[in-house]
Amino acid sequence: MPARTVVIALGGNAILQHRETGTAEEQFANVQKASRRIVEIAGEGYAVVVTHGNGPQVGDILLKNEIAKDTLPPMPLDVCGAESQGMIGYMLQQSLQEALREAGLDRPVATVLTRTLVDGDDPAFENPTKPIGPFYTAMQARRLEAEKGWRMVQIPGQGYRRAVPSPRPVALVEEWVIVRLLSAGAIVIAAGGGGVPVVADGRGALRGVEAVVDKDYTAALLASLVGAEDLLILTDVERVALNYGRPDQEEIDEMTVREARRHLAAGQFPPGTMGPKIEAAVGFLEAGGKRAVIASLNDASRALDGRAGTRIRP
Amino acid sequence: MPARTVVIALGGNAILQHRETGTAEEQFANVQKASRRIVEIAGEGYAVVVTHGNGPQVGDILLKNEIAKDTLPPMPLDVCGAESQGMIGYMLQQSLQEALREAGLDRPVATVLTRTLVDGDDPAFENPTKPIGPFYTAMQARRLEAEKGWRMVQIPGQGYRRAVPSPRPVALVEEWVIVRLLSAGAIVIAAGGGGVPVVADGRGALRGVEAVVDKDYTAALLASLVGAEDLLILTDVERVALNYGRPDQEEIDEMTVREARRHLAAGQFPPGTMGPKIEAAVGFLEAGGKRAVIASLNDASRALDGRAGTRIRP
Repeated sequence: MPARTVVIALGGNAILQHRETGTAEEQFANVQKASRRIVEIAGEGYAVVVTHGNGPQVGDILLKNEIAKDTLPPMPLDVCGAESQGMIGYMLQQSLQEALREAGLDRPVATVLTRTLVDGDDPAFENPTKPIGPFYTAMQARRLEAEKGWRMVQIPGQGYRRAVPSPRPVALVEEWVIVRLLSAGAIVIAAGGGGVPVVADGRGALRGVEAVVDKDYTAALLASLVGAEDLLILTDVERVALNYGRPDQEEIDEMTVREARRHLAAGQFPPGTMGPKIEAAVGFLEAGGKRAVIASLNDASRALDGRAGTRIRP
Repeated sequence: MPARTVVIALGGNAILQHRETGTAEEQFANVQKASRRIVEIAGEGYAVVVTHGNGPQVGDILLKNEIAKDTLPPMPLDVCGAESQGMIGYMLQQSLQEALREAGLDRPVATVLTRTLVDGDDPAFENPTKPIGPFYTAMQARRLEAEKGWRMVQIPGQGYRRAVPSPRPVALVEEWVIVRLLSAGAIVIAAGGGGVPVVADGRGALRGVEAVVDKDYTAALLASLVGAEDLLILTDVERVALNYGRPDQEEIDEMTVREARRHLAAGQFPPGTMGPKIEAAVGFLEAGGKRAVIASLNDASRALDGRAGTRIRP
């Protein structure tokens, strides 16, 4: 049995970058690169759970639904999220298995289609903040607000987008499945895009909701549920920085939960980007995790060895 | 542990019927109905694997890709198939879990994103026969043949469609995952749409191919791999019939593999509809299965009790 368990959270941009057009070839090439980094870690003896963002992919699926809407009924966001888990899970399964083969390792790989339980009373439902899908003109935005009750937000210089709630993850419905497969020795791909958000009614029946759970918060919960020692959040910067983008910018090698909380309170980490990653790391460590590391994809393996990225400890 | 294992194959039309427009609501309503039938069977003590068609769903995904193709690059068929597994798996997971709850049963439910290994030398690759996706005009069809190398077939009175190869399933890449979860007590949803077809190159690397594996053949292989005693193929007729649609039509309650083979050879079961179901049933029984039943969705539970449908025995 592997000595340690790590949950690796891949940013959606590790699979499809902003400047790319979104072909399957581009995405496979990116996923193959990420998979080789993940397999390096598996080869060091870690039990591995992979989770991933889905922003660019679910954005494309939503846009295709929008463009085709006079011909075919658009699918709601929960269904599109499940589609994106199938799409990205498949690309990861293929690429991880190939990277394992190249490395001479023999481990099963499994994608677990995951639902994330959220609280129907989460205040996020009163205040949708997460922009998703295509851009609209002001006139279209007003019509969508009236017709569908969507909350629209203006993105300066780019138009209007739908904003959906981003509630906190409470539980993973497929926890049992993930734990079973992981302890049997598989590399498990789970909770893509933060998982498909579902709420429970008074009787316990689950219903999908049009919301997006932040994938880093879900990664932290997932790491706690599988008893992972390490949470590795991969992104497109090499280290967390203080005073980011200013002349006195200062990269952090290591910090404690207490220091991270202090920087968060001081507004050092913006809500849309680094903030959720730091909060996720802090949440994981406060729930008993041993180490959280934020690093760039290329440094993944070195980051777990303590030679790259920003480490946060309890 | 359950006494017997059954693989239940749901037709794509059990999830989205021809006359329906394809909204998520329609599909959820159909899947809920199917899930109650499946849970009746689980409640009788069976270990259950569910597999399903994806024709209408992947057709809609392909058409959305086609309509949006000037804005976003269309995904290849293997990726669209994986998307449809995510979409349908999610709807089944939600609905099965709710049906279990209503029935007072406590069993985990898991969707396993499944790849089906096919033989790159399968003669089907030389002769694409399976029509998929949207209809085209004759002029569009000629252009697609020239530009993309697609094989186009004419559907009388409706236009042209792309035809892709329909190779036989050789193995399920995710066999280990499916068996693990099933023997641990889960209801497993697997190999949707026949599984995403992949071929292995000389080194053993897997590559997705633009093909469709018949979901009934995959169901039969799946049933053999999990050691199921029973294969239940659910469709929209109550029984298999001889001389179908003629004045001397005769419904069959039960037949042997030998009788089924004789009727197949006599051309009683058309290739596009009942033929593959009978061939799948025969293949399963010849590989050691105890019983195959072809029945309508509404009769699912009674069919396994021997009170409905057409039973085929070794």
